Amino acid sequence: MSDRLLIIGGNAAGMSCASQARRLRAAGDLEIDVMEAGQWTSYSNCGIPYWVGGQVEEAESLIARSPAAFADLDIKIRLGSRAERIDLDAGTVTVRSTVGNRGGEGGEGASSTLGYDRLMIATGAVPLRPPVEGLDADGVFGVQTIPDGEAIRRALEKQPKRAVVLGGGYIGLEIAEALVTQGLSVTVVLADPLPMASLDEDMGERVCAAMTALGIEMRPCEPVRGIEVESGLARAVVTDEGSYPADLVVLGLGVRPNSDLARDAGLRIGTTRGIEVDDTMRTPTHEQVYAAGDCIQTRNRITGHPMAIALGTHANRQGRVAGTNIGGRPARFDGVIGTAVTKVGNCEIGRTGLSTKEAEQAGYSIETTLVESTVKAGYYPDAGKLAVKLLTEKHTQRMLGGQIVGGPGSAKRIDVLATAIWTQLTAAEFASVDISYAPPFSPVFDAVALAARKAAGR
Amino acid sequence: MSDRLLIIGGNAAGMSCASQARRLRAAGDLEIDVMEAGQWTSYSNCGIPYWVGGQVEEAESLIARSPAAFADLDIKIRLGSRAERIDLDAGTVTVRSTVGNRGGEGGEGASSTLGYDRLMIATGAVPLRPPVEGLDADGVFGVQTIPDGEAIRRALEKQPKRAVVLGGGYIGLEIAEALVTQGLSVTVVLADPLPMASLDEDMGERVCAAMTALGIEMRPCEPVRGIEVESGLARAVVTDEGSYPADLVVLGLGVRPNSDLARDAGLRIGTTRGIEVDDTMRTPTHEQVYAAGDCIQTRNRITGHPMAIALGTHANRQGRVAGTNIGGRPARFDGVIGTAVTKVGNCEIGRTGLSTKEAEQAGYSIETTLVESTVKAGYYPDAGKLAVKLLTEKHTQRMLGGQIVGGPGSAKRIDVLATAIWTQLTAAEFASVDISYAPPFSPVFDAVALAARKAAGR
Repeated sequence: MSDRLLIIGGNAAGMSCASQARRLRAAGDLEIDVMEAGQWTSYSNCGIPYWVGGQVEEAESLIARSPAAFADLDIKIRLGSRAERIDLDAGTVTVRSTVGNRGGEGGEGASSTLGYDRLMIATGAVPLRPPVEGLDADGVFGVQTIPDGEAIRRALEKQPKRAVVLGGGYIGLEIAEALVTQGLSVTVVLADPLPMASLDEDMGERVCAAMTALGIEMRPCEPVRGIEVESGLARAVVTDEGSYPADLVVLGLGVRPNSDLARDAGLRIGTTRGIEVDDTMRTPTHEQVYAAGDCIQTRNRITGHPMAIALGTHANRQGRVAGTNIGGRPARFDGVIGTAVTKVGNCEIGRTGLSTKEAEQAGYSIETTLVESTVKAGYYPDAGKLAVKLLTEKHTQRMLGGQIVGGPGSAKRIDVLATAIWTQLTAAEFASVDISYAPPFSPVFDAVALAARKAAGR
Repeated sequence: MSDRLLIIGGNAAGMSCASQARRLRAAGDLEIDVMEAGQWTSYSNCGIPYWVGGQVEEAESLIARSPAAFADLDIKIRLGSRAERIDLDAGTVTVRSTVGNRGGEGGEGASSTLGYDRLMIATGAVPLRPPVEGLDADGVFGVQTIPDGEAIRRALEKQPKRAVVLGGGYIGLEIAEALVTQGLSVTVVLADPLPMASLDEDMGERVCAAMTALGIEMRPCEPVRGIEVESGLARAVVTDEGSYPADLVVLGLGVRPNSDLARDAGLRIGTTRGIEVDDTMRTPTHEQVYAAGDCIQTRNRITGHPMAIALGTHANRQGRVAGTNIGGRPARFDGVIGTAVTKVGNCEIGRTGLSTKEAEQAGYSIETTLVESTVKAGYYPDAGKLAVKLLTEKHTQRMLGGQIVGGPGSAKRIDVLATAIWTQLTAAEFASVDISYAPPFSPVFDAVALAARKAAGR
């Protein structure tokens, strides 16, 4: 008799788990059954700002693999099926149909109960919502799901003039860029003094300047106090400093793990609000129950501290680790170091490892090194500027963090720093690495190498 | 009484040695005296193709630091001074003035003899010349020095129509691109079956296709047999297959270490024709004599085998290592892994570590993994294609080499592979590294990560 793997959530973590488990165990040995509240599987949440911005025309482009493609792998997908309750003792999940409601909201349809031998929880993340009134009004949008993107695109058809974005993290930046691209006047309202709070201040200032140069009105240190609503429609965003008229308001405050279902079932939830799992993606209390992706609590590889981080790559890797273990082979997730990259207009941003604040909070004594250089040889055409900041541990010179802000072609070199930090190189060791040089690609010493050399030379 | 450091060669290796030695020892303690046969110091040889191509307008742009700037550091530069003979027993160098000859050729001026306490040999490289007749004709050019670049630029003023480039390595590719950019019909004649012989064949084929698509006529497997000369002027390049008319002929066959002066002095020359030095850049027989840059034999960090490699970054690093040791602090050069990057038109090329041929010659049993992917998320606009090839050791899965050929934005990720190979990661270890993702920068799994995952999954 075959086992049944039940998966809650048909996006990155859930479906990479499904695919990997199927690769290792045939349909006669393992039945795989996926409940997805929405109408899509395996799509790129991260692509939604670019769909809103018009760089991507069709939602279908964002879909990596359709339900039909999964069906071909003998993976059953139940679209419009919201998991309502997990009974860990009985080994069952109660699921309710959301049919007729493409957004997956509500829960009016029929309910049924499915048994499992193994359960995978991949419920993703939900947008952070400030504790203010008016957020439920029409004209206030998230940027998390395909229905969110559809709703913003419909709103754009009415040719709105002004948008207010709440928050200046990755999503805030990307949606601000998208709305500027669509010709709107954009105001970014943020509680922090600077956008990109995961950067050090001197780097965040560069991002802020770039956003201002794009014509975005920046309103730092102004936490939102409320949304002005007229006839059910959002009209303005109110802070202590003023009221910013808005034809549309977008939530760019980041996300939190969507762990309520797991918590209600009695699974352990960490300090980050993510579901607790070990490196095999198993929950510590129930060895048949796995969780992966944006809904879990993972581990910072540098500090060892718990961390909740929503990113498609981690979700994919973690789902694959779970699927490998379910498939009968040992696999472990090695943690994260917080590598991320984004852009706003021509300003690219990369970061990895610890920021100064994070390093200090973790008790490290650090030194920082800032290098300003060019993306290509200085004499080569269009050699945009970039700044690289390196954080090293004071006594060991071990690299702990890196940040890049610069012109086109600058940010992806964060991966070199990420690899060096991952492998615990010192600045001197990294400064010796034979990395590439040619005038169209960098000065003789790439800014990342130069930063390491400067850090090592103290 | 102060020591005297005599440096032969005022480019990357020589001048980084000078700067670093001065940083550590003041002028009262160390006199620094540089002999440079030409009229320039510290310029970017690698930038010359882009000066020829017109992306760089002025030779002055290629100069990192002028003789006057060095004079401010109490570093004496003797321009137009060719070292003719080193007497290791006497500790002297005989130098002859080349004044009146900007190219530094010949040697008709006055001669003098200078003593040294420490000697640094940084004589660089000279272009490889095929053993055929006609190479000394007018209209045959190297791409090695500023006078070479000036000569080609002067030739371009006469509005030539057809150029033949001999060789398909880095310089061959770059100068072919430059001449296409200048509107010439370009034929590349090469002895090998494919351009970029430091790549595997399947990757070289991609480069060849890109060059053909640029309108370059590729003539592989046709070693040059001679240059047709009329009235002292090159008119065509002759191979076994045909005769290719040329208004100008450019040598792009690569370079060899310019080690003749050192050899004549009795210093040891390696199998690669480079001057033998240890990791401190000292010659093994004369501890007061150092050498660095394109003229030396260095060490491949992976195989431990000797290697001659001409690249500004290594020359700079090696010069700095020599300067640090001369300055009284210990420093070592950690070897190279052959990382390089270039482009021809929109085709970018990166390589690091061992190619299949190199790995097999060194006795490794290897596996190769090829991944075809996109530079950005597949749905993002202008997501050019790229191919990544990974070489891993069969039994250990240790990464030994990487190659990238692809569209704009692809090649610089060779640095991530270089860092992983440098630190001896296995494919599985590298596949776990937290590298960045956002749709404008890569698919969810960057091609380099995907290649590692595929290699690890065998």
